[in-house]
Amino acid sequence: MRSARTSVWLCCAVVVFGVLCLGCTAGKYEPTWESLDSRPLPKWYDDAKVGIFIHWGVYAVPSYGSEWFWINWQGSRTEEYVQFMANNYKPGFTYQDFASDFTAELFNATEWAELFARSGARYVVLTSKHHEGYTLWPSKHTFGWNAMDVGPHRDVLGELANAVRATGQLTFGVYYSLFEWFNRLYLNDKLHVFMQREYVDGKVWPELQELINTYRPEVLWSDGDWEAPDGYWKAKEFFAWLYNDSPVRDTIVTNDRWGMGTLCLHGDFHTCSDRYNPGVLQKHKWENAMTIDRKSWGHRVNARLEDFMTTDELIGELVTTVSCGGNILINVGPTKAGTIEAIFAERLVEMGRWLKVNGPAIYKSQPWEYQNDTLTGSVWYTATKGSSNRRSNFRTIFATVLDYPYKTNSVRLGAFSNQVTNIAQITMLGYNTALKWKPTDDGIMVEFPPKNEIDRLELKHAWTLKITLTTQWPLNV
Amino acid sequence: MRSARTSVWLCCAVVVFGVLCLGCTAGKYEPTWESLDSRPLPKWYDDAKVGIFIHWGVYAVPSYGSEWFWINWQGSRTEEYVQFMANNYKPGFTYQDFASDFTAELFNATEWAELFARSGARYVVLTSKHHEGYTLWPSKHTFGWNAMDVGPHRDVLGELANAVRATGQLTFGVYYSLFEWFNRLYLNDKLHVFMQREYVDGKVWPELQELINTYRPEVLWSDGDWEAPDGYWKAKEFFAWLYNDSPVRDTIVTNDRWGMGTLCLHGDFHTCSDRYNPGVLQKHKWENAMTIDRKSWGHRVNARLEDFMTTDELIGELVTTVSCGGNILINVGPTKAGTIEAIFAERLVEMGRWLKVNGPAIYKSQPWEYQNDTLTGSVWYTATKGSSNRRSNFRTIFATVLDYPYKTNSVRLGAFSNQVTNIAQITMLGYNTALKWKPTDDGIMVEFPPKNEIDRLELKHAWTLKITLTTQWPLNV
Amino acid sequence: MRSARTSVWLCCAVVVFGVLCLGCTAGKYEPTWESLDSRPLPKWYDDAKVGIFIHWGVYAVPSYGSEWFWINWQGSRTEEYVQFMANNYKPGFTYQDFASDFTAELFNATEWAELFARSGARYVVLTSKHHEGYTLWPSKHTFGWNAMDVGPHRDVLGELANAVRATGQLTFGVYYSLFEWFNRLYLNDKLHVFMQREYVDGKVWPELQELINTYRPEVLWSDGDWEAPDGYWKAKEFFAWLYNDSPVRDTIVTNDRWGMGTLCLHGDFHTCSDRYNPGVLQKHKWENAMTIDRKSWGHRVNARLEDFMTTDELIGELVTTVSCGGNILINVGPTKAGTIEAIFAERLVEMGRWLKVNGPAIYKSQPWEYQNDTLTGSVWYTATKGSSNRRSNFRTIFATVLDYPYKTNSVRLGAFSNQVTNIAQITMLGYNTALKWKPTDDGIMVEFPPKNEIDRLELKHAWTLKITLTTQWPLNV
Amino acid sequence: MRSARTSVWLCCAVVVFGVLCLGCTAGKYEPTWESLDSRPLPKWYDDAKVGIFIHWGVYAVPSYGSEWFWINWQGSRTEEYVQFMANNYKPGFTYQDFASDFTAELFNATEWAELFARSGARYVVLTSKHHEGYTLWPSKHTFGWNAMDVGPHRDVLGELANAVRATGQLTFGVYYSLFEWFNRLYLNDKLHVFMQREYVDGKVWPELQELINTYRPEVLWSDGDWEAPDGYWKAKEFFAWLYNDSPVRDTIVTNDRWGMGTLCLHGDFHTCSDRYNPGVLQKHKWENAMTIDRKSWGHRVNARLEDFMTTDELIGELVTTVSCGGNILINVGPTKAGTIEAIFAERLVEMGRWLKVNGPAIYKSQPWEYQNDTLTGSVWYTATKGSSNRRSNFRTIFATVLDYPYKTNSVRLGAFSNQVTNIAQITMLGYNTALKWKPTDDGIMVEFPPKNEIDRLELKHAWTLKITLTTQWPLNV
Repeated sequence: MRSARTSVWLCCAVVVFGVLCLGCTAGKYEPTWESLDSRPLPKWYDDAKVGIFIHWGVYAVPSYGSEWFWINWQGSRTEEYVQFMANNYKPGFTYQDFASDFTAELFNATEWAELFARSGARYVVLTSKHHEGYTLWPSKHTFGWNAMDVGPHRDVLGELANAVRATGQLTFGVYYSLFEWFNRLYLNDKLHVFMQREYVDGKVWPELQELINTYRPEVLWSDGDWEAPDGYWKAKEFFAWLYNDSPVRDTIVTNDRWGMGTLCLHGDFHTCSDRYNPGVLQKHKWENAMTIDRKSWGHRVNARLEDFMTTDELIGELVTTVSCGGNILINVGPTKAGTIEAIFAERLVEMGRWLKVNGPAIYKSQPWEYQNDTLTGSVWYTATKGSSNRRSNFRTIFATVLDYPYKTNSVRLGAFSNQVTNIAQITMLGYNTALKWKPTDDGIMVEFPPKNEIDRLELKHAWTLKITLTTQWPLNV
Repeated sequence: MRSARTSVWLCCAVVVFGVLCLGCTAGKYEPTWESLDSRPLPKWYDDAKVGIFIHWGVYAVPSYGSEWFWINWQGSRTEEYVQFMANNYKPGFTYQDFASDFTAELFNATEWAELFARSGARYVVLTSKHHEGYTLWPSKHTFGWNAMDVGPHRDVLGELANAVRATGQLTFGVYYSLFEWFNRLYLNDKLHVFMQREYVDGKVWPELQELINTYRPEVLWSDGDWEAPDGYWKAKEFFAWLYNDSPVRDTIVTNDRWGMGTLCLHGDFHTCSDRYNPGVLQKHKWENAMTIDRKSWGHRVNARLEDFMTTDELIGELVTTVSCGGNILINVGPTKAGTIEAIFAERLVEMGRWLKVNGPAIYKSQPWEYQNDTLTGSVWYTATKGSSNRRSNFRTIFATVLDYPYKTNSVRLGAFSNQVTNIAQITMLGYNTALKWKPTDDGIMVEFPPKNEIDRLELKHAWTLKITLTTQWPLNV
Repeated sequence: MRSARTSVWLCCAVVVFGVLCLGCTAGKYEPTWESLDSRPLPKWYDDAKVGIFIHWGVYAVPSYGSEWFWINWQGSRTEEYVQFMANNYKPGFTYQDFASDFTAELFNATEWAELFARSGARYVVLTSKHHEGYTLWPSKHTFGWNAMDVGPHRDVLGELANAVRATGQLTFGVYYSLFEWFNRLYLNDKLHVFMQREYVDGKVWPELQELINTYRPEVLWSDGDWEAPDGYWKAKEFFAWLYNDSPVRDTIVTNDRWGMGTLCLHGDFHTCSDRYNPGVLQKHKWENAMTIDRKSWGHRVNARLEDFMTTDELIGELVTTVSCGGNILINVGPTKAGTIEAIFAERLVEMGRWLKVNGPAIYKSQPWEYQNDTLTGSVWYTATKGSSNRRSNFRTIFATVLDYPYKTNSVRLGAFSNQVTNIAQITMLGYNTALKWKPTDDGIMVEFPPKNEIDRLELKHAWTLKITLTTQWPLNV
Repeated sequence: MRSARTSVWLCCAVVVFGVLCLGCTAGKYEPTWESLDSRPLPKWYDDAKVGIFIHWGVYAVPSYGSEWFWINWQGSRTEEYVQFMANNYKPGFTYQDFASDFTAELFNATEWAELFARSGARYVVLTSKHHEGYTLWPSKHTFGWNAMDVGPHRDVLGELANAVRATGQLTFGVYYSLFEWFNRLYLNDKLHVFMQREYVDGKVWPELQELINTYRPEVLWSDGDWEAPDGYWKAKEFFAWLYNDSPVRDTIVTNDRWGMGTLCLHGDFHTCSDRYNPGVLQKHKWENAMTIDRKSWGHRVNARLEDFMTTDELIGELVTTVSCGGNILINVGPTKAGTIEAIFAERLVEMGRWLKVNGPAIYKSQPWEYQNDTLTGSVWYTATKGSSNRRSNFRTIFATVLDYPYKTNSVRLGAFSNQVTNIAQITMLGYNTALKWKPTDDGIMVEFPPKNEIDRLELKHAWTLKITLTTQWPLNV
């Protein structure tokens, strides 16, 4: 009888998690989506806009294909992976055997954190555990399959959390895969069509709580949820604990991957799909989790130059994402030695240089009425936040030009067609003189500085026009 | 309030183990020691007398010191072990890193079983999991730290169970260590002075049940219990399940290592201490679990010739043990490659040859009124079983002579001092002529056949006199 | 007596190499530097200008510091290296132990060759054997320490030679280290102050001949010569064989590293020092062997972004080198897996794009009277080759501008101050319209196309002006 | 022209080995078999009788099949070996890859030497280099394929030489394989039907001289000679150097494996075939090189109990060998860890106990007129040495009884049929009372002590009768 069973579960929960329930009665949030979805988004997250995603695990050892190496090899038995193993490893070699070669001998969390800070990012999300089940911290619940027991022999997660926070610029978050491809407890629950949850009760809940209580992340990036309903994962109950009682209840943000039916629907921010970048304004806060290596989240020795986004492409992705209300979470896959390949560093450092100049158009910005321009589609808008609330006479709009107008050295903007008289000034970020502009039939035309001047100032990749309006502009966000 | 808490635990237990309790009301045994201790010992076990113990695990890789390698190295930090690692392995090398070298490439369960059969043993007990926590079967509860995932990549336990049973001579049992030295869940429970049992509920119970339900062993040889009370381990509840409801309820025997206070007190047979051989008759069925390599249960590359018991010593151990009511469980430690060193095989095969001749004094025997003789202390007695129940006119006593009487070629036996007239005949097992004997002041003197005759018949190690009495002898067992 | 001894050596040489001496009398070249230095440089080499250097060996396994890992660790015992080994490897680990991890599982010679072809290079030089002594081909003289016996288990050199030649664009050469840091034969000769040459006779000569006879390289890039005089190496005798009798006598070019006193003095081309780029015209053909990773020739996992030359810097190095009469040999260090990191590929591909447009200023060019301009120092000159010999009315000079004139969008050139009237036309490579220019007091001023036009045509890194003169110009080369 | 060529070779030899030729004119031995065979056998060797042979090399790593693992796997491609590798190692794995696992971490030369001393042996012969080419000392001529560079990282040979000599009981010798299965230089010479000898001149000669000059062994046990004539190996020249000029010229003994046609014909002692034990007296000094593990010289993890000789068998082999004029060289194969398995140690220690009592019949003995007895074939004779030269009135003959006379407790000896009156006394070694004996029709009958007495004194395996004759006996040796 279901109700009786539930009450038993409740009493169990009281016992098991009782110590955490001291403030239960004070809990604002009920374990219903209606209640949970009513929680306001912690401010820091929307202001941050740019995060770094790190996929690091045992897959960095074969470093081949992608971080889905294990399942491609032994799940779907994809020919290419099966052959790779047959050619290069001894018969009977298991995925677990890779772990002792995950040496991380050059892993220096401070160096990573410095690189991420130079990139202009504001937060970092590390895979605390991917679908392989290997944890980057010494989880009490993952004996012998974590970074302390085999491989680095270090608390990788703890070291990175400290280093990231020590920069003063970055907050720290964790990715956590709910399922584990080859966990026999999970597979057994699945075999019972998720009508039992030995795996959730014995593994996921205690491990997630250990993770959050120990490291106090500010992002919890769930994944690997999709095979089971959110009821199996006890997602709502977990959210209630997270929002009401966890030590990070005031700052934590979590995503939308908490079981079938939650994607793009519940959670503090929506991720919808990998590399989600809809190109139009979204009603709910969202995040574009994407990769510089287009074909893999984990490190691949067999990546080719063509697989890596150029800096131009990366900045384009960033600009369009922010313009439509998203954050961008840019993924890098470190090597098994613990280094980040120079090609990644180059992209990040170049983005950092760009953000140093163009940051005002990104950080703490909000979408404007238009996302990209009606006349010049490669121009994307943001606006400064909150000015509508203040009794300000000025309002600032940023128009970021992704494709340089080589032919005319000027851009035509249609978004201001009925605002022309409100334009007080137009400048280019990084260039200290006001630009010439003039009204046209269908908007305005802004003349760029001479290209050699722009180049001399090392303005590249994308160029941001800062447009100051004298009257307030009705915001739709 | 304690009582409330207990009731919650009970309800939890109902939920967790409810499915196993369908036949609870039919259970003959209550979870009290009084009830549990009332269970009669399954007959096969006392008849068998000789078992083979196998300690095989990741410790076979360093193969140094003993199977307690890990704790000696990283627990007590014994200088010798610390130095061994510092000299031979790279910094940060963990015990788990050994596992991929546990290759077992020559492991052939049938060859093992044949050797054990040749040794004359009647049962085999394999370490399904030692204190290191590594399981020799693909346990659902020990992800990535079992013989399927790392090392042999085989279900070692399953293979051996099948091969052992296929001999038709041997039954199969398992050793299981309750605690695991470095399991963080266990250590956490211990930190909470065993007032919580996350480890027992999340690991031990489900794993033991999986083990028993899957492989149906006939011996469950528990160990690693001693740091916690039996209440922590829920030992009585487990016994009740085992005796009432498990698939092996009719045949299983288990030992006495189920928590502080159980040793030498509860369980089907008592082990009391390692290499327990009290030399006097015991009231309760017991077992002498001992090793051929005197200094280690697991394989040691650094064993020296002197560390191995000679065949004479082994047979002496066997004879004294059985004489006092014990079974003997003789341990061998296979190599990481899966072979059993020739020195072990030599001992086992020589014991097998001896048992082929002298088996009647061992198998299905029972202790006699005397254990060793009053005049010749190196003579040990057994008697045929059950003849007291039958209306037999004859009764057979076996006197096994451990030290050959080189000087006199005869033995004086005091145990028959007031039975002399009942002696119908004295023979030597393996020798087909009745021996000469005569009464003496204090018993009898039995003349041995000429030594060259004995040697020609290859009777060695120990010599068994078979003494047939015409009237029944009152038994004390 | 020295003379007697010499004659014995000569007779030995006759015996050992007699088979090669069938055509000795026909040999044009005597084993004297005077005779050897008189050999004309094979034409292909000076025309080629750009080569790729590959340092690949067992050092790719630790991939730390540089390809001098071994000697830094165990020769000079540099703290950083000693510590790296102490931290990450087991005691007693030797350099040879690295070799089995030199897996090269992703090594695809065709992919490498394609990348090198895309870079615009005209030849490739592979380290057939570096100072470590490990050979990339199955040398008969290096048992167990070559790419066939341990590591890749492939004839790496043979595979690459074939793939490189199959491009139709590239010729193939080999680097060969004369000495080996830890070869006991060499060390023993050294101990005898090079008065014996067991190592040269037993190892170097037969191995070099095997290498050349088997693979017929067109570059022999010697190194590791400096501790001993050229007499020890029998360099002159070797040159005589190479120039007179070897199968590559018509095409081979070799460098100047053949023993103390040869550097920058003898050989087909001079290398003088690593990364030699004198900035002024040289009398003898020379080569700038340099690295994209400024700090290492071999792959380093611990390289940082800053260590890699940018494409601008690389092209600057190329332009200045060629302008002064040199070839450039650009080094990349592949990973132990057999891949070339994307950061290297990026530099090479970008150079290739530049050369596609600007190649006429490089390939088959020769130095002009001026190397860099007197007024604008960042402008470097080359000239088309051989036109002075023909009865041509036109002559083409290339002026490559390394620093874009952002301020003026024009350059002033002093080199033509007394040639102004001879200038027929000035164009920019990649831009199809003649440029405006005018005489000035001290030369000419050339007006660049608008920068946005240049950018639109993707002309970057460096800009080549092609200046056509109507009358012949006296050449000094 | 052949004669000219020879003279050149001679002059080369003068140069290369000149330093060794200071005493050339004093050389007693010419490089002809006639001259070389005239050298008297150094006395120590015939007196010693019992040696220990050690086969240790990289084959101890796979430890499978035998020390011919490599050639069985990759030469003859025997299915069993090919399959073993396919099942257990990664594709492309080479024999050289085994070497880093030849760890020898427990190798303690002193412990080995003590065991050999306990065995009663008088000399030890170690495989300095087997057919695999791997040297157990840091040979200058075997770069990267020796025990210092890969594997133990120690001078195994040097350590053992010192430890063996330090016992004061044992002399030290070396085994050296002339050919190397996979040495490309050797294979190339072979391809040229041994008409060239790059391998001999470049490898064998310098290496053998280094070995002898450095370690001064007293046995040089050559092998791997059979594919080429002794001329190819320059055997006679080498013998001349060894006997005339080497530092061990007074003590060295060498065997008969120096090229086709030398086996069983030349050399200080003949080995004829592996495990040579002809059972009849030989004219020339010979040696029975045999193995305790009947099927392999190197260690095999897959050896079975039945493969090991029992102590009875070993002593039988020893007794028959010595009786026929041979020495016995008893082989053990240590593990890759550097230990000697207990089964070997047991055999050696038991032989040592036997030799402690029965040594007089073995050491410094010589064959007698009869080898085994005419009436009791399992009785084998030796005699004390040299007494015929002295004016002694007594002569001692030893009759070793291999099969105990269980039925009669006495033996009949036919060898003394016409010597009966000369018998002064008969005793049994280890038993302090004279035995009863009596003449019979065809010899004598000797009565054994009671078997229980013999057993009490722990006389086992074989029993030696010491027969003292009053008059001299004509010797045939």
